[in-house]
Amino acid sequence: MRMGILTGGGDCPGLNAVIRAVVKTAVHEYNDEVIGIRDGFSGLIENRVHDLDLDRASGILSRGGTILGSSNRDNPFEYGDKSTGAVRHIDVSDTVVENFHKNNLDCLIVIGGDGTLDIAHRLSAKGVNLVGIPKTIDNDLNSTEVTFGYDTAVGTVMDALDKIQTTAESHHRVMVVEVMGRDAGWIATASGIAGGAHIILIPEIPFHPEVIARKIYERKERGKHFTVIVVAEGATPLGGDRVIKRTVEEASESVRLGGIGEWVANQVEELTRVETRCTVLGHIQRGGSPSAFDRILATRYGAAAVVLAHEGKFDHMVSLQTPNIVAAPLTDALHQMKRVNVNGSHVITGKNIGISFGDK
Amino acid sequence: MRMGILTGGGDCPGLNAVIRAVVKTAVHEYNDEVIGIRDGFSGLIENRVHDLDLDRASGILSRGGTILGSSNRDNPFEYGDKSTGAVRHIDVSDTVVENFHKNNLDCLIVIGGDGTLDIAHRLSAKGVNLVGIPKTIDNDLNSTEVTFGYDTAVGTVMDALDKIQTTAESHHRVMVVEVMGRDAGWIATASGIAGGAHIILIPEIPFHPEVIARKIYERKERGKHFTVIVVAEGATPLGGDRVIKRTVEEASESVRLGGIGEWVANQVEELTRVETRCTVLGHIQRGGSPSAFDRILATRYGAAAVVLAHEGKFDHMVSLQTPNIVAAPLTDALHQMKRVNVNGSHVITGKNIGISFGDK
Amino acid sequence: MRMGILTGGGDCPGLNAVIRAVVKTAVHEYNDEVIGIRDGFSGLIENRVHDLDLDRASGILSRGGTILGSSNRDNPFEYGDKSTGAVRHIDVSDTVVENFHKNNLDCLIVIGGDGTLDIAHRLSAKGVNLVGIPKTIDNDLNSTEVTFGYDTAVGTVMDALDKIQTTAESHHRVMVVEVMGRDAGWIATASGIAGGAHIILIPEIPFHPEVIARKIYERKERGKHFTVIVVAEGATPLGGDRVIKRTVEEASESVRLGGIGEWVANQVEELTRVETRCTVLGHIQRGGSPSAFDRILATRYGAAAVVLAHEGKFDHMVSLQTPNIVAAPLTDALHQMKRVNVNGSHVITGKNIGISFGDK
Amino acid sequence: MRMGILTGGGDCPGLNAVIRAVVKTAVHEYNDEVIGIRDGFSGLIENRVHDLDLDRASGILSRGGTILGSSNRDNPFEYGDKSTGAVRHIDVSDTVVENFHKNNLDCLIVIGGDGTLDIAHRLSAKGVNLVGIPKTIDNDLNSTEVTFGYDTAVGTVMDALDKIQTTAESHHRVMVVEVMGRDAGWIATASGIAGGAHIILIPEIPFHPEVIARKIYERKERGKHFTVIVVAEGATPLGGDRVIKRTVEEASESVRLGGIGEWVANQVEELTRVETRCTVLGHIQRGGSPSAFDRILATRYGAAAVVLAHEGKFDHMVSLQTPNIVAAPLTDALHQMKRVNVNGSHVITGKNIGISFGDK
Repeated sequence: MRMGILTGGGDCPGLNAVIRAVVKTAVHEYNDEVIGIRDGFSGLIENRVHDLDLDRASGILSRGGTILGSSNRDNPFEYGDKSTGAVRHIDVSDTVVENFHKNNLDCLIVIGGDGTLDIAHRLSAKGVNLVGIPKTIDNDLNSTEVTFGYDTAVGTVMDALDKIQTTAESHHRVMVVEVMGRDAGWIATASGIAGGAHIILIPEIPFHPEVIARKIYERKERGKHFTVIVVAEGATPLGGDRVIKRTVEEASESVRLGGIGEWVANQVEELTRVETRCTVLGHIQRGGSPSAFDRILATRYGAAAVVLAHEGKFDHMVSLQTPNIVAAPLTDALHQMKRVNVNGSHVITGKNIGISFGDK
Repeated sequence: MRMGILTGGGDCPGLNAVIRAVVKTAVHEYNDEVIGIRDGFSGLIENRVHDLDLDRASGILSRGGTILGSSNRDNPFEYGDKSTGAVRHIDVSDTVVENFHKNNLDCLIVIGGDGTLDIAHRLSAKGVNLVGIPKTIDNDLNSTEVTFGYDTAVGTVMDALDKIQTTAESHHRVMVVEVMGRDAGWIATASGIAGGAHIILIPEIPFHPEVIARKIYERKERGKHFTVIVVAEGATPLGGDRVIKRTVEEASESVRLGGIGEWVANQVEELTRVETRCTVLGHIQRGGSPSAFDRILATRYGAAAVVLAHEGKFDHMVSLQTPNIVAAPLTDALHQMKRVNVNGSHVITGKNIGISFGDK
Repeated sequence: MRMGILTGGGDCPGLNAVIRAVVKTAVHEYNDEVIGIRDGFSGLIENRVHDLDLDRASGILSRGGTILGSSNRDNPFEYGDKSTGAVRHIDVSDTVVENFHKNNLDCLIVIGGDGTLDIAHRLSAKGVNLVGIPKTIDNDLNSTEVTFGYDTAVGTVMDALDKIQTTAESHHRVMVVEVMGRDAGWIATASGIAGGAHIILIPEIPFHPEVIARKIYERKERGKHFTVIVVAEGATPLGGDRVIKRTVEEASESVRLGGIGEWVANQVEELTRVETRCTVLGHIQRGGSPSAFDRILATRYGAAAVVLAHEGKFDHMVSLQTPNIVAAPLTDALHQMKRVNVNGSHVITGKNIGISFGDK
Repeated sequence: MRMGILTGGGDCPGLNAVIRAVVKTAVHEYNDEVIGIRDGFSGLIENRVHDLDLDRASGILSRGGTILGSSNRDNPFEYGDKSTGAVRHIDVSDTVVENFHKNNLDCLIVIGGDGTLDIAHRLSAKGVNLVGIPKTIDNDLNSTEVTFGYDTAVGTVMDALDKIQTTAESHHRVMVVEVMGRDAGWIATASGIAGGAHIILIPEIPFHPEVIARKIYERKERGKHFTVIVVAEGATPLGGDRVIKRTVEEASESVRLGGIGEWVANQVEELTRVETRCTVLGHIQRGGSPSAFDRILATRYGAAAVVLAHEGKFDHMVSLQTPNIVAAPLTDALHQMKRVNVNGSHVITGKNIGISFGDK
């Protein structure tokens, strides 16, 4: 078999581990040939590809990023036509199909999130044999229990919280830490529990600023003159959507960084008069050497994808259903998001140990 | 409710996270009182206990070890009588029951491995209300999918392998790394996959030294003049049990550290004439700040144990069945070990990407 | 001897290591008594102190923060009078002297930066026997070669840069990372070299945005479609002080986080049309477990301070002059800042390996 | 100019950082050409070389090992003649000189320790223009204040000690950790202070086992039922050289790992009856991503070596004399070892804070 592989969308620890596992399984187990496609679907549109043998896939297990490059603006169904000055979007999916065949590919392995897998599914409908591998550090993709990169991101946030805890305690401060999670609060919830946060704000649970202030007071009364708050970037105050959205957007015009974390910090300082600082962790959450958990999961995904390809299970993606990796239809992953269950084990554990989610 | 808590057996990252979660849940959620019992069952035999309030359980989430102390020689059914010079073992379990009542305890929370939970079960039979929390870095306890401490140990080994990989490659060496796992190869398998090992030897798969040598030759032919081998301390060569056991035991008389890793290194060097070095990772695998995964699992275990206590689910232990924490009878955990499935997903993944398990 | 110890100013990794070394040296070597003063000079003003024996100073070597607490608003010469509602600043330095004697102290050990050591010097003039220990993560204090906390901060930034490098490379982006350093570019220079930055902007070298853009183009021409820029928070564009200050200040009104990093990112994106992102590392630079270098330096400082106290070298601070710790007059440390030498070894090394400092 | 570069001797974090700095400085600053020589002097003997441009030297700053490979058996003055079966050592230094000229090299940059730099000096005498860069994780090379790799090794040991501390404390054990340092106790002393060791044994200070036992008792009396001992591999008991050497050598026959650490552990257990465990850290001390300190020092060394080459300062090596990198004659580095000053700042600090060095 001759297979192509590409990585799409934002950065995520474990991409190289997947690529390595695909190549190793293809070569060692099936004597396949693998070619690497540059910069997501762009590489298939512009036919930028290269051989990907054991040597090139060697020594990359522990490295962040992707040796293939990625792209965020590579949708072949709405491709930005750079030849004309104007920003026009044209459908170049036929070129993708053409280049797939021109490179004598029997199968395409597509590593990406919601958007990338949606494109993959539409290419399947045009006759491209492909297998998907789900990717998101936010862990909000449906039909797999967990995605690689998430554990590493949670670890990165936890390390930051460990550092911030001692400063908060020594200097009697409220520290707000804004983390990734536009639509789902997985990173905030997990890292908040792991990092000893006292308050966790997530998109799934609208919060009252007054509830936060009360929690800070309660701690003060018990002699705890500091509080650590983890805020997912998609968290919103109850009923206050409009207000906060406006404030944040206005801020964003001048300074892109201003977000919900800063808004919460301002509210808290106003309500409690306690010195409050905000840190926005930003892009460090997407990078770095993957954790053991993520390297193993990524390796299992990569190896399983090649097996699926040989079984002819196209238009499917690999999916973790403990303890196995199984095949799930690509359509299952799309248009439905896995959000934090507000009555599930993580939130209940958090509430049991006294963490406030800002709801009451 | 008034509950006691103790930690038994060897060190394991996450013990303090469990203790913290028990205290926080007990106080915040149920307004319970908690007392800490020193040094495992010893503290109940000798009545060495102290109050364990929010203050004492604060700030320990990220710390290795156990603030309660532990003990390996504290079986109340066979207690070493120190009063006499001779080593006599006597049954002091009645004293334990007595002290349980003397301290007005309604429930005992016991954190420990196979041995400690066995004692817990026998104390249950004597009328002590108790809830168990499974603990082993080896991950070989039955009736829970995974135990806390294991992920941290795998991460520690992976970090060591990352360091050793570059030395092996730069200096054209075979590097043997001996890791924990007397009866089960979980740590070796997981860390080997995560750390890019080329050969993994585990107790579940007896190995041929010749197969190892052949793998090293194959790599050499592909221009890879180095090989990294992970060996679980319980791995044994096929049919050679007697030979190796004798060799290792003789070695152990003079130097405790000599083990299977060193034996493998000697065999490899003899068979291949390639410079080979062995590192025995030892106790660093049991210590350190727990990973995010382990802090979360430990916290969930601790919180769930208090809930079980309030539900009167005694003689049970908490158990992870993704995505929930459930109650499992203590007897389920005992006398049956969870070993690596030689046809399971991890070993198959390993073989798919070209890792040799030394069996053929 | 009976000595008091306090920590003042912002957080800094190694404070606990200093405290531990002071207590251990005082007790083991001199049989002294030590008392801990809470929250900087506040504790001496309000007489909040406690015994500090070996037990309390034990196990804190590896921990960030300060077990004594700190304060940023504790200048006894201009103390905020909380009794009246209005913000009035009164001189309560006599109370400090009084409490110093009331606690039967023979000596005070003061750990702090420029501001704290200035207060210490003024208290010396009022007859308080004291020894200073210099503290700043910015490494900009004069009369010591290096301060503890700085190496840890550089390591934290380097870790962030390692994570960001792979994202930048995989996604063809310019990544701007804003780090601490209001007046001196030590952290930016050191972490930039250690983290493989391509451009470093520091207060000591005013930069041209056009020079930055040119460097990005040059890299692009060599096939490097990504660039990592480290910006010290005090960096300013050449001649453009007024412009940027205004922009930043306006931004700051709505969102505190917007700073020079964001300004640079906007300029770069405008000039080059390459996707550019900014991350402000913020408070994680001040926290965390100290590095080996910092633990050793902090321990040496702490031990040496006690020796100085016994030698009667008051109104002095400890100072590193490789390879020794010596005494330096407190006045040497004040009112003069150690800035990066623009013709010194670090900048020259940076320029030699092709790093642009934005000046030409 | 056209320069060659090679790395010799054992692994050391920072080798790649040096190589990268050499290439970048040569290309960016001087428009030089650089060629990489494989596996130390072997590559000059067997003429295995390749171009080393910016691309090949890119992305390696953070990686352990050396992309050029190294060798321990490559002395051209006593080269193992592999053509004959017998192990004969012949002088092939003329071949080295020949290949130096055949490759049109103007200068050779040699990165290595005592042995490698000695060879370099002898090649200088044969007319090879070369500049040395000192390398040893042991930090025992004369004529430079500190060598790269050492700080990383100390950090690795400190991390291990952090892990072992909590186990020791929780389980009331004596833990012995054997670290590198055959002739000098730098790693043991620095990591022992940084990692909170209670006893440090180094080659420079012969120890009495009874003094160790007494220290353990003293701690026990103060309620500290655990002790952490760091032992340099070259430490020896006072007057007991013969005894211990014999024991260790006998042990070594069967098991290579047995060393002074295990001997100390046995002695301690015998003298104190406290459960004692030994961990030999081994090769993990030589590998891994270099620390910020080492990356900066390595980069400064590499950049400065190219400058020296252009200044014609041959038969010299780069050397750190805070705050500058200067040139030192190669002969200064040879045949004299930098050992720990038993009355110097580090040992005195250690003793001040109550660390025992086993001498009294």
